Parts: sequence; C-alpha cells; structure tokens
Amino acid sequence: MKLYENERIDRLYSNEVGIIQSADVFSFSLDAVLLASFTSGLRKKEGRLVDLCAGNGAVGLFLTKKVTGQIIGVEVQDRLADMAKRSIELNDLEDRVQILNIDLDKATEFIKKDSVDIVTCNPPYFSNLPTSKKNDNPYLAIARHEISVNLERIIEVASDLLKMNGKAYFIHRPERAAEIFELMRKHRLAPKKVQLVHPKAGKEANMILIEAIKDGRPNGIRFMPAIIVYKDSDEYTPLLREILYGKSE
Amino acid sequence: MKLYENERIDRLYSNEVGIIQSADVFSFSLDAVLLASFTSGLRKKEGRLVDLCAGNGAVGLFLTKKVTGQIIGVEVQDRLADMAKRSIELNDLEDRVQILNIDLDKATEFIKKDSVDIVTCNPPYFSNLPTSKKNDNPYLAIARHEISVNLERIIEVASDLLKMNGKAYFIHRPERAAEIFELMRKHRLAPKKVQLVHPKAGKEANMILIEAIKDGRPNGIRFMPAIIVYKDSDEYTPLLREILYGKSE
Repeated sequence: MKLYENERIDRLYSNEVGIIQSADVFSFSLDAVLLASFTSGLRKKEGRLVDLCAGNGAVGLFLTKKVTGQIIGVEVQDRLADMAKRSIELNDLEDRVQILNIDLDKATEFIKKDSVDIVTCNPPYFSNLPTSKKNDNPYLAIARHEISVNLERIIEVASDLLKMNGKAYFIHRPERAAEIFELMRKHRLAPKKVQLVHPKAGKEANMILIEAIKDGRPNGIRFMPAIIVYKDSDEYTPLLREILYGKSE
Repeated sequence: MKLYENERIDRLYSNEVGIIQSADVFSFSLDAVLLASFTSGLRKKEGRLVDLCAGNGAVGLFLTKKVTGQIIGVEVQDRLADMAKRSIELNDLEDRVQILNIDLDKATEFIKKDSVDIVTCNPPYFSNLPTSKKNDNPYLAIARHEISVNLERIIEVASDLLKMNGKAYFIHRPERAAEIFELMRKHRLAPKKVQLVHPKAGKEANMILIEAIKDGRPNGIRFMPAIIVYKDSDEYTPLLREILYGKSE
C-alpha cells in the first residue's frame, strides 16, 4: 500500500479495520467512530448506504462490520478521496465500498434519488461566516467549515437520496441542534432518536448524534442515555472502550 | 388552614415549604421540583417572575427560596387556584406571591407585556387530539392535556410577557423537543440551555428542561449533564436528594 509523506495507518476493532490517516490532511476522530456505532445495521445484500462528507472514508469502512450491502462514500476533496480509496484497497473491500470523488451537490446525479436505505454524515461543524476563524490548511478548513457545502444542502441531499422510511444518521455540535431539527423537518426527515456525548460525566455535551426517518411521523424524539467518553481519571469509560475496540473476549 | 376532603399538606426542603395537595384534583410532582431547581435565581426586589399553568402553585412557592421579587401564578382552574391561594397563606407569603385565576390567554391583560424577568411553565404535556385518551377527572384532564390552551399559545404568551433578555423555563416531554424549539424560535425565544432527565442511568429521558432567552442569539444550545433520578436500587440519586431536600448539613 502506497503511503504518502506523513501518512500512517490507524487500526480499530482489534486491528480488523485499517484507515490511512494524515494529520496534515485529514484524520478521522472519535466523531466518526461514534457515528458508525450509532448507525443501525443493515442486513440485506441489496441494501445501500451512502456516507456524505466521507473524508478519508472512515465511517463507511467501520460500517462494513454492520452493513452487508453496498457502501458509497461521497467526498469532494481529491486528496481525501484518494486516501479513502487506498484504505478500501488496504482492507480488500473494493467489492463493497466505493468512493465518489464529487461535489455533494451532484450526489443525486450519480446515485438515484429515493434509492438509499441509510445515509450517514459527519459534516463540517462550523458555519462559514465572514468572521469565523478558519484553518490555514485548506484540507482541514473545508472539512471543518461549511465552505464547499452548507448544512441545509447536506440535509436536503440526504433526504433526496433516501427511500421512504430510510434512515439518516448525523453527528454534529449540540449548539446547532435546534437548527438541525428544523432543517430536517423542512426536508421530510423526522428526528427520531438523539444521543448526547459528554466528554466527562459532569461536563456539557460536545457532540450530538441524531437519527431521522424520511417521511416519519413528527414529534417522537427519544433521547437515549448519554454517552460519557472519559472517566474522571481521563481513561476511556467501559462503553467507549467497547465502541472503540469491540467487546472484550 | 382550611383543608377540603382528601387534601393533604406536603412539605419540601426539610419542611420549609408546605403545599396543599390532592390526588383527586392536582398534586405537584417531581416535574415542578425539577423546574424550580432548573430556574435561575433572581436577586432583585423589583424583579418579577410569572409561573404559567401554575396548578396548585408549587413552582412559584418553591421559587420563593431563589427569587426575592414578586411571583405571580396564572391558573385557569378555580379549584386549583384556590388550593394555591391557601398554600400561599399557609406559608405566609401573601406579600410576595399572588395567583391570578384567569385564562392564560388573558395574561397580558393583567400583567404588562415586556415587564417580566422570568417566566416558568410546567404545561399540559399532551396534545388534545380527538384520539387521545384523557382522564375522566376534568381537573386532571385539563392539567395534562392541551384542552384549555395549546403549546404554541403558551410559548407566545411567555414571550409576550418577558422583557428583552428575560428568561423562560419550561419542562416538557422529550418527544416534543423539536416542536418546542421551533415554536420558541417563531416567538422570539432562543433556546439556550437544555437538561434531560432520565429515570435511571440506562433509561431514555422522560423529561426535558429548557431555558430560553427572549431575543437571544439563535444556535447556542448547551446540553448540560443529564439528571438521573433513581439509582438502580430505586433510591433517589444524591443529586435528586439534594434537589428535593436541600444540601445536607
């Protein structure tokens, strides 16, 4: 496997999945792991999952453990899409996972509308306001700020791709929860299940996981038990260890 | 103090506040205690707090511990407003707490618009759908279902009453969170702080506490550490004991 300068391979689930990472370009983080863990499985060969804002492909690769059908990642940045493709090869998953190196805006030109069972997305978290301080590194700036696409457009595309009753899974920042719920409702997605992620037991949440159903009934949000990432001693909690490394034998 | 048939006096905070209760008519429950605990204090003599859907006045009475100014409860049901008035007498709080026995719709005819620092509300939780099963007891039916007023109108009145930057505190059911956020935004209230209440550590939330600021900036919701009510052993958690009975000496 060809690795460029400053690239490394990170392994998860007791070394079962390897992901090419680069601090200079893009590294998946806990967000991707939590999103994949929150996403429900899909046990049918003809099922399709699309991962929007796929980055280096981590979410889709993690989900090969839970989804038996086709997995398509959509990533606009050439360099990241290339990393994702090499990670797919590294894991011998070319037959099940593809990367479309396209603008998210064009996703429905490549993937049929109303054809997808599950959409996942770990989008840029921050609005692209004139005042917002962005990373000088353009790869990281695009991954973190809504430069190439904004939240409403992402939600709209997710909804367009999904079949009726298909499920969308998002991870985002809690401060944007109300906006996300409202945009989802506007675009035929009914938020159904929410899980907050707190860095420690006594701390405010710093991530929110949201499951929504296309054309689902409104007003049925369930707030699941919160996820606590670290113990007071700064070690991972048992739940996090299980999410990261799988159940211990 | 005159007590009617089946009425009793419940005492909270090491017997410092007594509330007249009746299982036949209305009893405050944990909701009222949590709402009062979630509400921030107001330490100015000329401050005003209005408690909408006041029931037997429990929230307002609890808040006399944290609010030094005037407290006004609004309650449409005569029988409940009468219980609230007797509880106020029982606690010798006639100079600080009043009950308006009026329809919430008329609140702004009695209380000046844009004049209130804090609005609290523990509203009826359930929509008044033709299909919804309501309590045969009319007192309880009105307290639990949106029969005499609906959620949007409550939020609108709360906003009308509040000064700019005044704070609204609601407790409600988590499944209506998205609707509440959207109605708040529509009526100039920006949700700012959310706290979920879970009956036990591994259970879904069954209550949500929401603080909103009138004319506050949108998109800044903070999700505080969740409140867990019971230990697995069915005893109250230390946090709940503190909320119910105050800090132990």
